[in-house]
Amino acid sequence: MDVRALVFDVFGTVVDWRGGVAREARRLLGPAVDAPALADGWRGQYVPSMERVRSGELPWTPLDELHRSSLDEVLASLGVPGVPRPVRDELVLAWHRLDPWPDVVPGLTRLRESHVLAPLSNGNVALIVDMARRAGLPWDLVLGAEIVRHYKPDAEVYDSAPRLLALEPAQVLMVAAHVDDLAAARRRGLRTAYVHRPDEFGGRQVPPASDPDADLSVSSFEELADRLGA
Amino acid sequence: MDVRALVFDVFGTVVDWRGGVAREARRLLGPAVDAPALADGWRGQYVPSMERVRSGELPWTPLDELHRSSLDEVLASLGVPGVPRPVRDELVLAWHRLDPWPDVVPGLTRLRESHVLAPLSNGNVALIVDMARRAGLPWDLVLGAEIVRHYKPDAEVYDSAPRLLALEPAQVLMVAAHVDDLAAARRRGLRTAYVHRPDEFGGRQVPPASDPDADLSVSSFEELADRLGA
Repeated sequence: MDVRALVFDVFGTVVDWRGGVAREARRLLGPAVDAPALADGWRGQYVPSMERVRSGELPWTPLDELHRSSLDEVLASLGVPGVPRPVRDELVLAWHRLDPWPDVVPGLTRLRESHVLAPLSNGNVALIVDMARRAGLPWDLVLGAEIVRHYKPDAEVYDSAPRLLALEPAQVLMVAAHVDDLAAARRRGLRTAYVHRPDEFGGRQVPPASDPDADLSVSSFEELADRLGA
Repeated sequence: MDVRALVFDVFGTVVDWRGGVAREARRLLGPAVDAPALADGWRGQYVPSMERVRSGELPWTPLDELHRSSLDEVLASLGVPGVPRPVRDELVLAWHRLDPWPDVVPGLTRLRESHVLAPLSNGNVALIVDMARRAGLPWDLVLGAEIVRHYKPDAEVYDSAPRLLALEPAQVLMVAAHVDDLAAARRRGLRTAYVHRPDEFGGRQVPPASDPDADLSVSSFEELADRLGA
């Protein structure tokens, strides 16, 4: 492989969305609310809400706005009434304040010596920038859905990485903890690396240990750095 | 001013294009070529070549390709014949290898503590990323012409900064050594800071010491950090 750039799925792959959203929900809503259930319910709205954009039912809408819309529904389904508007607005920023898995910063720091690094997320640019500044994620640039106004798995998102980096698709390695994201990247000619994140769903569902269709399967970003000789 | 993000012109403002292009021309073409004249001639094609894209005469074309096209003309005008194609291709990469002015890295490092930092250049993304990695420019993300497929001073480029950062235009400060770039940014509601770069043109033309229409005029990025309390 002649890989020059690595692009990363973010929610689940780089950061622990479930733990971070639950932490912010506890902080903002208090102990009476089932914070992990709120995180799971909110994340459950993620794919359907983007699908409304992908299908053309909604015009381009950044993820913060989709999160803001779906939050009301999730609060209602959990029987949490009367959360004031400023608190709901603040809760949307929970997604900007997610912590990386422990191997992420050391792994990215090593990988960046030899490779261009960019997120390729459905998160909007402001969200990804806030997260990177808070967590110290050493991205070279921010790629992803909002840049091209398409959500993954639309081809436009994957195609944008080699196009903007002036590389061949096979010189770009997509890193993700989700086999469907990697399959979509492969269809656009990118190389793929699967990262096993057993705790993404808090044990409610256990992802596979490896992806036989990926070029690499690893259990951490540090192992990825080892495998790429970084 | 409630400024949250700083966006920067790059060629002339952040890096010394004339010195860097001349250095690479000497390295690749030898001492017989008038390297500063090549840099000046090449830069002279910059605005006209982008104008062909802005007017619609050419479809969207990244700056590397515009540089590649105009190089042949510049070499011919200087009476430099028979430069092999691989050397001309390599010479285009001179624009990826420009050195920052001495105050840039210390100034940006201070500014980044309190502000989001991004280039807002006509340089294509791969060029800006290569330059940043080589020079250690601590950008949070890469904004600019290629992201929106418009060249400055088109409004789309300036508008993209607050839009993608989820800020109001007046929360974004455009930093440039060129009054026309700042005037265009102001027309889109951005705040502006002028940086005096007396050596940009190697003394052939001396830019004004300050811009009375800008919110700030400074002589270095370190002074800018002082003025913004960073």
